[in-house]
Amino acid sequence: MAAEFLRVTYRLTCAGDEDPRAKAEDIALEQTVELPSSCVSDSIRESVVGRLESVTELGDNEWSAVILFPELVLDGSISQLVTLLFGNISLKAGVVVTALDIPSGLLAGLPGPAFGAEGVRRICDVKERRPLLCTALKPVGMSAAQLADLCYSFALGGVDLIKDDHGLADQRTAPFTDRVTRCSQAVARANDETGACSLYLPSITGAGADLDRRVDFARSRGCRGVLVSPMIIGFDSVAALARESGLALVAHPALTGCYFQPTHGIEPSVLLGQLFRFVGSDGVIYPNVGGRFVFTEDTCKEVNTALRKPMRGIQAALPIPAGGIDIERVPYWMERYGPDTVFLIGGSLYGQDDLTAASRRLREVLSQT
Amino acid sequence: MAAEFLRVTYRLTCAGDEDPRAKAEDIALEQTVELPSSCVSDSIRESVVGRLESVTELGDNEWSAVILFPELVLDGSISQLVTLLFGNISLKAGVVVTALDIPSGLLAGLPGPAFGAEGVRRICDVKERRPLLCTALKPVGMSAAQLADLCYSFALGGVDLIKDDHGLADQRTAPFTDRVTRCSQAVARANDETGACSLYLPSITGAGADLDRRVDFARSRGCRGVLVSPMIIGFDSVAALARESGLALVAHPALTGCYFQPTHGIEPSVLLGQLFRFVGSDGVIYPNVGGRFVFTEDTCKEVNTALRKPMRGIQAALPIPAGGIDIERVPYWMERYGPDTVFLIGGSLYGQDDLTAASRRLREVLSQT
Repeated sequence: MAAEFLRVTYRLTCAGDEDPRAKAEDIALEQTVELPSSCVSDSIRESVVGRLESVTELGDNEWSAVILFPELVLDGSISQLVTLLFGNISLKAGVVVTALDIPSGLLAGLPGPAFGAEGVRRICDVKERRPLLCTALKPVGMSAAQLADLCYSFALGGVDLIKDDHGLADQRTAPFTDRVTRCSQAVARANDETGACSLYLPSITGAGADLDRRVDFARSRGCRGVLVSPMIIGFDSVAALARESGLALVAHPALTGCYFQPTHGIEPSVLLGQLFRFVGSDGVIYPNVGGRFVFTEDTCKEVNTALRKPMRGIQAALPIPAGGIDIERVPYWMERYGPDTVFLIGGSLYGQDDLTAASRRLREVLSQT
Repeated sequence: MAAEFLRVTYRLTCAGDEDPRAKAEDIALEQTVELPSSCVSDSIRESVVGRLESVTELGDNEWSAVILFPELVLDGSISQLVTLLFGNISLKAGVVVTALDIPSGLLAGLPGPAFGAEGVRRICDVKERRPLLCTALKPVGMSAAQLADLCYSFALGGVDLIKDDHGLADQRTAPFTDRVTRCSQAVARANDETGACSLYLPSITGAGADLDRRVDFARSRGCRGVLVSPMIIGFDSVAALARESGLALVAHPALTGCYFQPTHGIEPSVLLGQLFRFVGSDGVIYPNVGGRFVFTEDTCKEVNTALRKPMRGIQAALPIPAGGIDIERVPYWMERYGPDTVFLIGGSLYGQDDLTAASRRLREVLSQT
């Protein structure tokens, strides 16, 4: 079998007298053998060290470097893939992962979304070709009963996905089991009345047996999906949930912002658009342009494109733009982002007097495609 | 019981017409209720929203803001603590966490190091008051037998801690179980000859049951400690290992570099010095100044201070400076960092012809305190 390679494109920002080719060769060593070139045997150099395919000047002290990493350095896990891409060089400067081409063999071994965009539509019973509507339960500090009341109002108004705020964990104001029980019941009650299939997605945190217990509990209360923060629970935990939980996974971008610095990190289209999808997110929340965060419209569109890109064996995931999307602007974003999108409307919905009526109006707007 | 508060200091970099007080108040809302102030009831504002204690000008468009977060928003987990500190604002710009004061009740609920600096000394049977010596097994691509040979050479030379390179996972060149079996045996054989207690620390990755299986396997082969990357396996997984594994934990800083950007992130003294310690790391690897990474000497000393700071109920952890520490410079660093340090010497040791002899010379240098 011919050796397969992972093809990674880095944008390098060179400071002072830094040589772009030397910087790229350093990445090829640092991310594999972690040794100076002089300590590496010929056979290891041949089979393990990244190969510099090209270095191209972009202008403004920036270069694009393409490095081929032998598939041998990976072990099929997403954590090892992330380690290879950026583990140690995160501690250097002026390096951004801008593109990632994964050999098909490796890709086939990653979980990918268990439901995907179509599967989420299916469990929400949305037959129209319209964007889905999502909102967040908040704020922390409310009781489980109060949060359940919100759930009921939103579900009655036809919100498709009602997710916990990612900051809801197991606080004593609304302990996990109490919250999940009450919120699931509230959504089920509303669904009985409307005949629709709104989903309540509890936020899942913890590790190992604790994480499993929460997932089992959510499932036992009828939840069909959960909210996870991959940077908090770890990529391998998300992968395990995608493979084994039977639940749809909506991924939250908590802590990812550190990776989106101008001259250092991983491009959102790679981290949120590819890695979050490959690890098994059925939907990926990201900070929409014009809200209270810092993405540009181009960045948002690149994330959308990456999440939806047809790939053999890996289903498409749903982009979930969020963060300061004003109700009035939803038609504007629908036109730009298209029907295969979930709009997460939080604060702008909470600003309305009647949550059910406001949700209904929003759902009507979304159906006018 | 009086309400307890987490006291967090942020350094704010204000762009253009950004108002530092408004920026600080936005953090207080974003990290708790995630709602505009107008959507927050008085009782939630009183009990949940962060309180701005002070905003002080530092010059150069920088301000220091101190925010008190009610303990109510936490749930005793380290993941919720990290989410509170920086989850959503990671997606904004110009915010650095520079200090963290945790209420004693919360601190008592966090695992902290199970062994701590003294416990690691004890399991390595190091009675002298000298720094410990650590090296890394590398490179990936070597067979388990080759890595075991390296183990033997290092242990014979008196290296106290022989850790897997963090990139060693379960690659087919040296599968986890084969590697751990052979490397443990090699170190045990050397220990029999020397009468010393070198430890082999395998790198542990994965999640849930997979992670547990690897930990159990390592323990079954006589390992007394393991290497973990908290940003890869997740904070809660590390906490669970600290509480339940019975193994010493050495934490690797893979992926942390994204947090150490000049105007955005979490200061190394907080992330590596406090959070890595609180979550249960007995030793914390960081990139030493003058090596191939970007820390300053002040940063390194701040990390050391944070790891060693006496705290009731939380043992001190060992600083493990690494990354381009030249053998010749060890006395220089010993003088600066003192005996409660582990020196991780990788490349500079691999550059020597006789690994055992070079390790022995290094150990002699470390004993000359």
